Amino acid sequence: MRFTSEQRFDDGVLERGFTLGGIPGFLWTPAAAPAPLILIGHPGGLPGMYPRLAARARHSAAAGFAAATIELPWSGDRPRSAAAEDARADLRRALEAGEPVDDGIVDRLVLPLVDQAVPEWRAALDALLELPDIGGPVGYSGGVISIGVRLAVVEPRISAALLFAGSFVPRAIVEEARQVTVPLQVLLQWDDEGNDRQQALDLFDAFGSKEKTLHANMGGHTGVPEFEGDAGNRFFARHLK
Amino acid sequence: MRFTSEQRFDDGVLERGFTLGGIPGFLWTPAAAPAPLILIGHPGGLPGMYPRLAARARHSAAAGFAAATIELPWSGDRPRSAAAEDARADLRRALEAGEPVDDGIVDRLVLPLVDQAVPEWRAALDALLELPDIGGPVGYSGGVISIGVRLAVVEPRISAALLFAGSFVPRAIVEEARQVTVPLQVLLQWDDEGNDRQQALDLFDAFGSKEKTLHANMGGHTGVPEFEGDAGNRFFARHLK
Repeated sequence: MRFTSEQRFDDGVLERGFTLGGIPGFLWTPAAAPAPLILIGHPGGLPGMYPRLAARARHSAAAGFAAATIELPWSGDRPRSAAAEDARADLRRALEAGEPVDDGIVDRLVLPLVDQAVPEWRAALDALLELPDIGGPVGYSGGVISIGVRLAVVEPRISAALLFAGSFVPRAIVEEARQVTVPLQVLLQWDDEGNDRQQALDLFDAFGSKEKTLHANMGGHTGVPEFEGDAGNRFFARHLK
Repeated sequence: MRFTSEQRFDDGVLERGFTLGGIPGFLWTPAAAPAPLILIGHPGGLPGMYPRLAARARHSAAAGFAAATIELPWSGDRPRSAAAEDARADLRRALEAGEPVDDGIVDRLVLPLVDQAVPEWRAALDALLELPDIGGPVGYSGGVISIGVRLAVVEPRISAALLFAGSFVPRAIVEEARQVTVPLQVLLQWDDEGNDRQQALDLFDAFGSKEKTLHANMGGHTGVPEFEGDAGNRFFARHLK
């Protein structure tokens, strides 16, 4: 892990850009260290997502958490994948035509992404947990929800997850969700134009966790109410402190 | 409204029992007055429900809210209704036999209760809002959810409602829910043995409110997690203060 940039905000939060095996990422740490760590998931494209991710990270830091994220495979400044571009184009066509999105498209879009991304997040976790200002335990927060599901299943250092049900989920991932046992808070936008509500409810039902809470709010994909940021901090405070 | 008992708790909360037109009730007020008021709904039977209701009221009072409740028709020490007893017995039989609960039973059980109870809650509100230690605005919190729906529709003084989706809901009430416009937080126990999950989700979908949030948690009817008490206080703090 090599740090590539550094800035300190008025609120005392230190932001560092880094690169790890060619993958760019960001780390935000609060003044008080060592802090529990929240991995911040996103749909890919760090340059465009940066303002929202930095805002989420600083909101977490204000509650005493460090936060980190890395770029997703085939997104942002990383090399593209022809197969992923094809699957994305097929999804876009189906949505624009108002057709149901068939399982084949979802599988081609999501499963290779999960297979590629999850080992990268685990490698980032290895590197992050060696830093003196990062303690444990570790949470995952955000989408892509399928990445969060796989991480929660295979990575024992993830102690709690706040998952955003805002993307299509392969049936195989719904099956994997039965193996998840960590405490969960799941966010669902009730009228998310790019998401299937019933599929999200089925996924919530499938999780094996004894403590799982669904927070469904009105509005579309990007309309998550601000108060859910505070609710997320309280969820992680219960489980990471 | 005639006060029948009075005690002050260690936390400074004043509890007063009262009777209004022959209906018993309780009022809890925090030290700082005047306070916004939360009407606390319940399934009926104040003598048995008292410990839980007093705990909820004092939790609300700690966040600066007054709270009040009245006995439901045909419950507790109030006269029984043969029709209500019949409907309850039919419901119990259907549940014990593992049969689907038909609409007729739900209508006979819930609609007369709503018709009788809602004017009583409104009369209680008239009397409560004349007391010097009660300000406004007013929220409704709890079940019977059908009573909460009707109150939110017909009573303009209700500014926000935290509804517990833990009882069967007549189709007519689902239709009424489309007229509800106040901010809502709806609690659903995912594996509630005496409630139909899909019906609860349909009801949540039907509400006309622009701001509505569903909090679904694991477990049965009485297993609402403690942290939902805090989440409820924050919901009312956003809308009643």
